[in-house]
Amino acid sequence: MSRFLSPETAGLTPYVPGEQPQNINCIKLNTNESPFPPSPRVIEAVSAAEVGKCNLYSDPACAALCGAIAEQYGVDRENVIAGNGSDELLSFAFRAFCGTGVPAVYADITYGFYKVWAAFYGLEAAVIPLREDFSLCVDDYIGKNGTVFIANPNAPTGMALPASEIERLLAADPDRAVVVDEAYVDFGGESCVPLIKKYGNLLVMQTFSKSRSLAGGRIGFALGSRELIGDMNRVKFSFNPYNLNRLSIVAGTAAMEDAEYFGRCRALIVENRAFTVEALEKLGFTVLPSAANFVFARSGAVSGGALYKMLKARGVLVRHFDAPRISDYCRITIGSMEQMRGLLREIRNILEGDLA
Amino acid sequence: MSRFLSPETAGLTPYVPGEQPQNINCIKLNTNESPFPPSPRVIEAVSAAEVGKCNLYSDPACAALCGAIAEQYGVDRENVIAGNGSDELLSFAFRAFCGTGVPAVYADITYGFYKVWAAFYGLEAAVIPLREDFSLCVDDYIGKNGTVFIANPNAPTGMALPASEIERLLAADPDRAVVVDEAYVDFGGESCVPLIKKYGNLLVMQTFSKSRSLAGGRIGFALGSRELIGDMNRVKFSFNPYNLNRLSIVAGTAAMEDAEYFGRCRALIVENRAFTVEALEKLGFTVLPSAANFVFARSGAVSGGALYKMLKARGVLVRHFDAPRISDYCRITIGSMEQMRGLLREIRNILEGDLA
Repeated sequence: MSRFLSPETAGLTPYVPGEQPQNINCIKLNTNESPFPPSPRVIEAVSAAEVGKCNLYSDPACAALCGAIAEQYGVDRENVIAGNGSDELLSFAFRAFCGTGVPAVYADITYGFYKVWAAFYGLEAAVIPLREDFSLCVDDYIGKNGTVFIANPNAPTGMALPASEIERLLAADPDRAVVVDEAYVDFGGESCVPLIKKYGNLLVMQTFSKSRSLAGGRIGFALGSRELIGDMNRVKFSFNPYNLNRLSIVAGTAAMEDAEYFGRCRALIVENRAFTVEALEKLGFTVLPSAANFVFARSGAVSGGALYKMLKARGVLVRHFDAPRISDYCRITIGSMEQMRGLLREIRNILEGDLA
Repeated sequence: MSRFLSPETAGLTPYVPGEQPQNINCIKLNTNESPFPPSPRVIEAVSAAEVGKCNLYSDPACAALCGAIAEQYGVDRENVIAGNGSDELLSFAFRAFCGTGVPAVYADITYGFYKVWAAFYGLEAAVIPLREDFSLCVDDYIGKNGTVFIANPNAPTGMALPASEIERLLAADPDRAVVVDEAYVDFGGESCVPLIKKYGNLLVMQTFSKSRSLAGGRIGFALGSRELIGDMNRVKFSFNPYNLNRLSIVAGTAAMEDAEYFGRCRALIVENRAFTVEALEKLGFTVLPSAANFVFARSGAVSGGALYKMLKARGVLVRHFDAPRISDYCRITIGSMEQMRGLLREIRNILEGDLA
């Protein structure tokens, strides 16, 4: 820290992303990436000709990308905003919809960045504990003052709420905004996107990082009423108007248009998840019911922290959160069958070798 | 505006970027882009193989890119941070180095986004008028409380300060941070980068958008002491850790390594600028002395706003700012010789035709 750092910033505790080893050979199951490359259409779309146009600014409205998203979800382009990953858009939503008298409301166990953004903007936060079984009960939110942020499916548990439960929350207080973070919805969750036409207080976040194999492209999007998207644009144009680069716009547009590839990839992840859950349970793990491209699992034989370290020593990266209630668990991304077999082989080696 | 918008955000006046017509044929001289495509090495580097890896997150440390920048400028990698355009990094600097008791200090006529970021973070601002001739006198800043933001060369005037003047400001108060925004420095300005080793209170911002032909790649960088860069990273990791996508990292690294292409492009712009200034002066324009890839010019025969409109009607886009002291001027990007000849032809047509 320099002596120039403002007290407001000195007081922040930054988010710690999962390890991103560069050029290291390992089975990487720690940051919920897709094991599949981007759609062949993406690779074709990011052509030398497109790269050659990069001397010109990108379109600040991201019209092509937002148009493709709108078409896919059956909404208007004015119902869509794109961001530099859904992280940027979530940050914008904290800025837009929380402030004096309006705290940010979120669960004790959820995406760890919510509390960082609340602090970043100097917001009050109301943290609502998940139930004993890690389920989120919308009754705990009804009547609470503030803008609600719900990850559905939740991270790092993978557990999902039916859209009807979110709808109950939306309907209970139409004067309170609800942001539903659907980063993982494509792997078995129920999306709230169809509800944006009915509820002016609903903003839905999605991302290309998981189900559309573009984590490295940094593309997120939000869907909501024209007014809510207008508010998000007000923040964007007060922060960084050219927030998406040309190649990500081109890549994202092509990925969104390839619905067939998207469908195939997500089906494979759902299959591989079923295989992994069954195998982990046979090995004595407790696995929370997951609607995401990861599972949150705990071994009866070894702590979460120890398992993380032993797997890492064997070249398998998973994610461990040293936090209350969940430190027994590891979050394991669902990768290719080859990766999952590698994971299970190393877990068996640990249970039968290191620990035997 | 929705009824959910926080009063803090409702009070913002967003930045208005220059027009970015998509797929329209015009002579585009309004947003200071390079007329030259990115280096051939960039086009080679953004290969199908690199696009194919975009299912994996980008490196949050941007080590390859920051390493290439560090090597070019003769500093350590710990002295460099990369951002989603220098806009993002400038925003981070407002957050990091201004706050309670430390206002943001900047000129009345300068990059129009400074006042937007100050408002975005709810900061106090001290606005210091440029002198009558649009020059910035560092004596006006010495002794002022706050973190100083100076664009050098300045926008939209194009006028530059010698590095020795900035050094006088740095030395006058070592306990006050100074951010020098060198977006346009490569076209004739004198960079303060060599001063970062001597002055712990100096942060220098640069960008790939102008001299490195990558406006559409969205890549900015800042150079400063290890401690200042640490502070910038604290903000980044509290906002959006994966702020650069894979392809921009690859493109930026290749562009930074191609010093020869960079040198050639900037020399051409300097040549074309000299040609343009001479021609505009012959046509009765007053042109401020420019060290940037644009000129700020005023015709004796027609107002800035009218000229902007007449040029636009003739397919030439320049930038006009309807603001005190500068509304007589237009900011004209220096493009290729063909573009400049097209601009001058249309100006002649206006002066001899529309206005005759």
